[in-house]
Amino acid sequence: MEGDKASGCDGLVLINCFVSPYGNRVRIALKRKGLEFEEKPENLAAKSPLLLSSNPVHAKVPVLLVGGKPVCESLVILEFIDEAFPGAGEPLLPAAPCARAHARFWASYVDTKLPECAGRVWRSPKGAAAVEEGKKDLVAVLKTLEAELGAKPYFAGDALGYVDVALVPFAPWFLTYERLGGFSVAAECPALAAWAERCARENGCVAKSLPEPEHVFQFVCGMRKMFGLD
Amino acid sequence: MEGDKASGCDGLVLINCFVSPYGNRVRIALKRKGLEFEEKPENLAAKSPLLLSSNPVHAKVPVLLVGGKPVCESLVILEFIDEAFPGAGEPLLPAAPCARAHARFWASYVDTKLPECAGRVWRSPKGAAAVEEGKKDLVAVLKTLEAELGAKPYFAGDALGYVDVALVPFAPWFLTYERLGGFSVAAECPALAAWAERCARENGCVAKSLPEPEHVFQFVCGMRKMFGLD
Repeated sequence: MEGDKASGCDGLVLINCFVSPYGNRVRIALKRKGLEFEEKPENLAAKSPLLLSSNPVHAKVPVLLVGGKPVCESLVILEFIDEAFPGAGEPLLPAAPCARAHARFWASYVDTKLPECAGRVWRSPKGAAAVEEGKKDLVAVLKTLEAELGAKPYFAGDALGYVDVALVPFAPWFLTYERLGGFSVAAECPALAAWAERCARENGCVAKSLPEPEHVFQFVCGMRKMFGLD
Repeated sequence: MEGDKASGCDGLVLINCFVSPYGNRVRIALKRKGLEFEEKPENLAAKSPLLLSSNPVHAKVPVLLVGGKPVCESLVILEFIDEAFPGAGEPLLPAAPCARAHARFWASYVDTKLPECAGRVWRSPKGAAAVEEGKKDLVAVLKTLEAELGAKPYFAGDALGYVDVALVPFAPWFLTYERLGGFSVAAECPALAAWAERCARENGCVAKSLPEPEHVFQFVCGMRKMFGLD
């Protein structure tokens, strides 16, 4: 296993759920680095003893087990992968301290802003005012991200980097946001929509790591039904 | 200036507000590294053009200007300081990838949990149910942190490290949480209370960076009056 060769780790196991943008960040990063790993799919409605014992504080995916030792929190795991396997492929983060800070700032922006707004769109009862407000805020967040992307092919510049990997696993959720929020990401943020397509088209690690948008929507519909939101 | 020597930066300017736990993380880190910096105190009720232009996305302190170029978000700034000035004092983060991930996990825990619970205690109207619920959740968060601290003198082990610097600027707020929430941190979490005292007693960089708890309380009382919460 490449992971073993690179660091002496006993093996990499990713506890994930196929729709999780956070877990899929880690899938992308591991594949991009060419690191072999075993994936344990998690049923979030009945969490496994392995997940609960590996991440007792949050009880959330993803967890990356490294020789049995858990590393939790997706952005923390991305940094870990960069640092623990420096010989495996290009680093996700750039080298210069200012550029690293810039990338971390935007990944942190994604985490503090996007899921909260998006959650109001897809987790609110049908017809609730929160859906419309969530949509408005979500579009503003996506526009802010689009402005940061600018004319660059990737947030990192010419190739996929840390912010790209942090953000692109939300792209398969866009269809769900659009259907439940009544808007079009491509119409509101054409450059961001093109960036998401480019990420998947030009990077096998992305294409192979993300679920079909329609499957995410079906998953969300199932959850909404379970919680009586429709 | 040490900053110039270490990295070729033109100068360090910290935009901060004296009560900000986030800004005071950066003060501690800069002082611990022995880096000289100029501090620009910010009035959060009337934000300066410098703050708004330096951090247009969040319009929040702290911002560290490095040769005029802004670095934003306190944990991002701490990592930046470690990376940009490797020759200045001990690094905040440990060297081993697993230990770095562990420290980042707990700093992220502080940021995602503590301010939200604490905010319900100090920003809710007097007598609101949210105060009691916030207090309960806050005590649970502090107990989780106390369990992570365990019998160690510092979160990092024998000396002040990344998690200590991330958490200790909340200690001057404990008095405010206690008075508004009706509880005692020392009674609920004696080891954590002792840790906070140890941080200030044994580290000049902490003692010189934090406000008096009574001044924080007066500041919060002023804000509560302004917003009609009492």
